[in-house]
Amino acid sequence: MPAKGVLVAVTADVIIAGGGVIGTAIAWRAAAAGLDVVLADPARGDGASLVAAGMLAPVSEALFGEGALLRVNLLALDRFPSFAAELEQVTGHRVGLRREGTLAVAYDAGDYAALMRLTAFRRSAGLDAEELDSRACRKLESFLTPDVHGGVLFPGDWSVDNRRYAAALREAAAAAGVRVVPDRVTAVLTAGGTDVAGGADGAGGLVRGVALASGGEIGSARVVVAAGSWSGAVDGLPAALRSAVRPVKGQLLRLKHPDGMPPVLTHTIRATVRGADVYLVPRADGEVIVGATQEERGPDLTVTAGATHDLLHDAMSVLPVTSELILAETCAGLRPGTPDNGPIVGEAGPCGLLLATGHYRNGILMSAATADAAVACLTGRAPAPEWEPFGPGRFLAGEGAR
Amino acid sequence: MPAKGVLVAVTADVIIAGGGVIGTAIAWRAAAAGLDVVLADPARGDGASLVAAGMLAPVSEALFGEGALLRVNLLALDRFPSFAAELEQVTGHRVGLRREGTLAVAYDAGDYAALMRLTAFRRSAGLDAEELDSRACRKLESFLTPDVHGGVLFPGDWSVDNRRYAAALREAAAAAGVRVVPDRVTAVLTAGGTDVAGGADGAGGLVRGVALASGGEIGSARVVVAAGSWSGAVDGLPAALRSAVRPVKGQLLRLKHPDGMPPVLTHTIRATVRGADVYLVPRADGEVIVGATQEERGPDLTVTAGATHDLLHDAMSVLPVTSELILAETCAGLRPGTPDNGPIVGEAGPCGLLLATGHYRNGILMSAATADAAVACLTGRAPAPEWEPFGPGRFLAGEGAR
Repeated sequence: MPAKGVLVAVTADVIIAGGGVIGTAIAWRAAAAGLDVVLADPARGDGASLVAAGMLAPVSEALFGEGALLRVNLLALDRFPSFAAELEQVTGHRVGLRREGTLAVAYDAGDYAALMRLTAFRRSAGLDAEELDSRACRKLESFLTPDVHGGVLFPGDWSVDNRRYAAALREAAAAAGVRVVPDRVTAVLTAGGTDVAGGADGAGGLVRGVALASGGEIGSARVVVAAGSWSGAVDGLPAALRSAVRPVKGQLLRLKHPDGMPPVLTHTIRATVRGADVYLVPRADGEVIVGATQEERGPDLTVTAGATHDLLHDAMSVLPVTSELILAETCAGLRPGTPDNGPIVGEAGPCGLLLATGHYRNGILMSAATADAAVACLTGRAPAPEWEPFGPGRFLAGEGAR
Repeated sequence: MPAKGVLVAVTADVIIAGGGVIGTAIAWRAAAAGLDVVLADPARGDGASLVAAGMLAPVSEALFGEGALLRVNLLALDRFPSFAAELEQVTGHRVGLRREGTLAVAYDAGDYAALMRLTAFRRSAGLDAEELDSRACRKLESFLTPDVHGGVLFPGDWSVDNRRYAAALREAAAAAGVRVVPDRVTAVLTAGGTDVAGGADGAGGLVRGVALASGGEIGSARVVVAAGSWSGAVDGLPAALRSAVRPVKGQLLRLKHPDGMPPVLTHTIRATVRGADVYLVPRADGEVIVGATQEERGPDLTVTAGATHDLLHDAMSVLPVTSELILAETCAGLRPGTPDNGPIVGEAGPCGLLLATGHYRNGILMSAATADAAVACLTGRAPAPEWEPFGPGRFLAGEGAR
């Protein structure tokens, strides 16, 4: 790492700021497309991607009425399996893709009514859904409480082991020639040496590289900001984009089976327990992920007693055997939320700047399709039309750009 | 550490097997009394002592009718403050002795009736107790739920920071000249080279030293087995004593205040929530310990989802603000339980063997008085008469020993 204040003569075709699954997926595909890529991240794999359940589900309750977001999610879901298959082939590692489907269960009659509305919405989007009574739910998952009111099987909702997936992406990127700089990008630099932060015009200048926390610089005419919930901390982005991304805290638990206990779960369970949502996601290695809270607390990564209690309580309410599992880890992550819950993928601000952030709860799901879109931009092609509504321009109206 | 199979020429006046608070307290006092002491423990500070709340309370519900145990607990409580003061003086470190007293609270009317019976018993033992209605409880601890039925203040029940206390004991022992061997004692050796395990007569032979897991030996005519819940794993002890000590699993939580939050607790809270006991013990450094389960699971140290849930649930029931605290650590320890819940302190088996184990939930409380008793035995004096009922002989009737 360069000493503080030292300018570095490194240059690249493209610099990617942020080494989560979004940044690393872009880096891999850009390098595979022949670009010379530098990926800058101070703590690789320390972001929201590692504190995720890895559910590949294109619709959640938040999406009623968000037709454009549904379409880009469906694009992402459609793209994921081939992307994961290529990743497994390149690295020789399994990423833990599970195709058993998701069983959504409702604890009481009110929860069931809400689930029926969600099911109708999903069907209207062309997704399969199979309604099940309590007994049929327990045929699929024998450890479910008999108190479950009913459920719906979504056979197309899969899951991936987020940690295996992130590790495989890093390995594939390295194998494709991506150079990793273990440092934080503090600013996007533009020609003339000024950045545009705080300026009234977010569209000015030409990108010439990035500044690093260590004091060094890397030169490049193209920069992709894929820094997740920290994207707003990068100088040189139009102010309206910096303020559009906020951290949304999520706490989750990693449970393990005690030695000798057979797996308690086959499908991902999405449960609504008296209005509270909880999911339980089984992994091939015997882990069960329980999540997740959604908290507006700024960049706070503490694990609280209350969230841990609530997650355990709701999980035990639908799957009582959860109490016998080992509490292996409690953790918190920050998802990059946006005002309209949609991602921010596209060019904005100074020429050569590309954003790929704001994926909120769907970073894993959208990573493959986002990499396609970013590499299209970087190689002069048009991204899929589903991305059109999610350009940065929608937040720049007040700044007159894009 | 000696290589496997190598006999070592180390000798000592006394060897202590076990480096928890009991073993370390004995080591310190024995060295201070002029003895040449070796303390053997493979993972110092890794035992039940570190997974403890450090409550100094001589009476709990388990003790109804156990008059002899009450008397030795009162002896221990009486001795603790001067022992701790000397420890602080010798080491220059505070051990976090808190004298605010314990507030026992009852959640419902049934819990309150049980608390009244306990209070009457404690008063009959000469202990102070002040009955308080719900409002008076909240005057002492303003974050208590208004739902608390009532409570009792026990001003003589103190607490100590178990980790600081254990660390200070280790430092005092080292300063007094105790030599530490980081190895596990696998057997007490007797003259002639045979141990007495499995023999019908538990009283045979003369102690000549110990065998270590690494294969080495240490010579000494006197050995103190203070290995807590692992005491039964030491060969050379009479079989009836080995089987008298069993591990009783306890899980507890360490909570912390978020930055800027003032302390939520001043007194130790012992709560009964619909028949379930939970305690919350505040520390000087802002930690709050929540404990503890009592589980008969053998030597299992896993942290389970169910125990964590139950502890959090009961703590939040009496002190709702607990939900805002940080869950800093979940841990499990093994207390050395005995058939009559009493400790095993005294000579037994081969001549020169002393036991100091089986302290169950009161290891911290009894550590000072146990050190006195052990050092009395080692220096040819009689322990306090309160210890008389707790000799190993009570478990050896069938083996004709003592």
